[in-house]
Amino acid sequence: MPMAFELPLRIYWEDTDAGGIVFYANYLRFFERARTEWLRALGIQQQALRETTGGIFVVSEATLKYHRPARLDDELIVTARLTAAGRASFTMTQEALSRSEPLPDGSPRLLCEGLIRIGWVDAATLKPARLPAHVLEAMT
Amino acid sequence: MPMAFELPLRIYWEDTDAGGIVFYANYLRFFERARTEWLRALGIQQQALRETTGGIFVVSEATLKYHRPARLDDELIVTARLTAAGRASFTMTQEALSRSEPLPDGSPRLLCEGLIRIGWVDAATLKPARLPAHVLEAMT
Amino acid sequence: MPMAFELPLRIYWEDTDAGGIVFYANYLRFFERARTEWLRALGIQQQALRETTGGIFVVSEATLKYHRPARLDDELIVTARLTAAGRASFTMTQEALSRSEPLPDGSPRLLCEGLIRIGWVDAATLKPARLPAHVLEAMT
Amino acid sequence: MPMAFELPLRIYWEDTDAGGIVFYANYLRFFERARTEWLRALGIQQQALRETTGGIFVVSEATLKYHRPARLDDELIVTARLTAAGRASFTMTQEALSRSEPLPDGSPRLLCEGLIRIGWVDAATLKPARLPAHVLEAMT
Repeated sequence: MPMAFELPLRIYWEDTDAGGIVFYANYLRFFERARTEWLRALGIQQQALRETTGGIFVVSEATLKYHRPARLDDELIVTARLTAAGRASFTMTQEALSRSEPLPDGSPRLLCEGLIRIGWVDAATLKPARLPAHVLEAMT
Repeated sequence: MPMAFELPLRIYWEDTDAGGIVFYANYLRFFERARTEWLRALGIQQQALRETTGGIFVVSEATLKYHRPARLDDELIVTARLTAAGRASFTMTQEALSRSEPLPDGSPRLLCEGLIRIGWVDAATLKPARLPAHVLEAMT
Repeated sequence: MPMAFELPLRIYWEDTDAGGIVFYANYLRFFERARTEWLRALGIQQQALRETTGGIFVVSEATLKYHRPARLDDELIVTARLTAAGRASFTMTQEALSRSEPLPDGSPRLLCEGLIRIGWVDAATLKPARLPAHVLEAMT
Repeated sequence: MPMAFELPLRIYWEDTDAGGIVFYANYLRFFERARTEWLRALGIQQQALRETTGGIFVVSEATLKYHRPARLDDELIVTARLTAAGRASFTMTQEALSRSEPLPDGSPRLLCEGLIRIGWVDAATLKPARLPAHVLEAMT
């Protein structure tokens, strides 16, 4: 099993709602940030990739389980790990963990886990296409 | 099968991203709006409910399938339908459909479907609790 | 002085923050929605306009005064009124008013007021350009 | 003139709109993040501060000038500098600068500047109050 990429992030006012906790949709923002930084760590910049290939990533499925809420000022770690890859799509397993409310052994506590399936489309037509070979290679 | 509640909405600049389409997390915003208006149609205002009961709804699971993208200025219908209800949680089946790109027969086209599981917690402690009886009754 | 265009809107969980009130940046989202609907009422759809002219609106200045907060479930009216127009830019005066906390005489109460200056740019180069004549004419 | 606090940040998909650039309201999110990290650097955590004092910061005025757009993947520096302080409110001067499109001399280029006036209110009643003395002292 490949190591998970880890992005640290902080919870700001913009992320919270009147329940005093992070609004449920925002974990999809956090997961996207972690995927983007994982790709960047692999040498893939999406804006540049679009300019050279004419394609962009699009999410086709997302499954989220929410275990515990995060709050203002909390420090999170958001992970990104490739768990399946084909010619036209791939799947990421992602977690948001809290360093502000760690487990008894000090390790970060799971807040939210997601399974995100992503395809590749032509940016102009939005029609599905094959992942560029060098992208697939870099990811796997 | 109960009728689905329907909320019409419009896509604004704030909803889109640099791909020219609606950012994938925003369907969770749209689904939340439709659930809120469904509850309101049943006589349940969440701010008032919190003041009288001390509790709030929290999402525990969300599953999303993205079929087609929406774009700026598109007219959507977002549905909310209760498909399971227990004492401490319930499940909504929700769809985002496009009226701007209808099917050949003129009916709105499916863009995104979601299954959202929702629990009830004490607003102060965020501990799970039983749904207030009158809320469960109004919903079912 | 021209009549103000009025857009009704509702405050949802997504709009609030952990202070229990609407997050301050979101009034710019509301103002943008009202400007978009004002343009639509004048026969101008921005997506279609971009396809025919190659240009888009961009905000060059925004001044906001926050008088009172809005909360979850509040009903707002957001106004849009053209108060200055030149060949390359125009200025809108906008207000967010609350129908949920009206004044003693029943009229909606001012929450936030904004002055928004908007220019027109080529969508590809983002270079400033003259407003299309038919747009300027429709607005004034 | 005091030194400006600097927060580096990256532009993600969530920040952009269909114009291919950062949505204009999002600079207020960036400015809030920078103010929060400036306060944290001064030893002030807002969640903890609220628990000990019962108060929160609220923005009363914001003035923004947009000079150039930011795009996906751009690296920004967002500054926060206290430029006025009284007993019940203070003013921050803030800038968003691009490291991805630097000036000829290599220094970051100004994208957006803001003047943000902030007050202090009781979190329960939202009534204005005096800034806690130790907060005012830490800031100035």
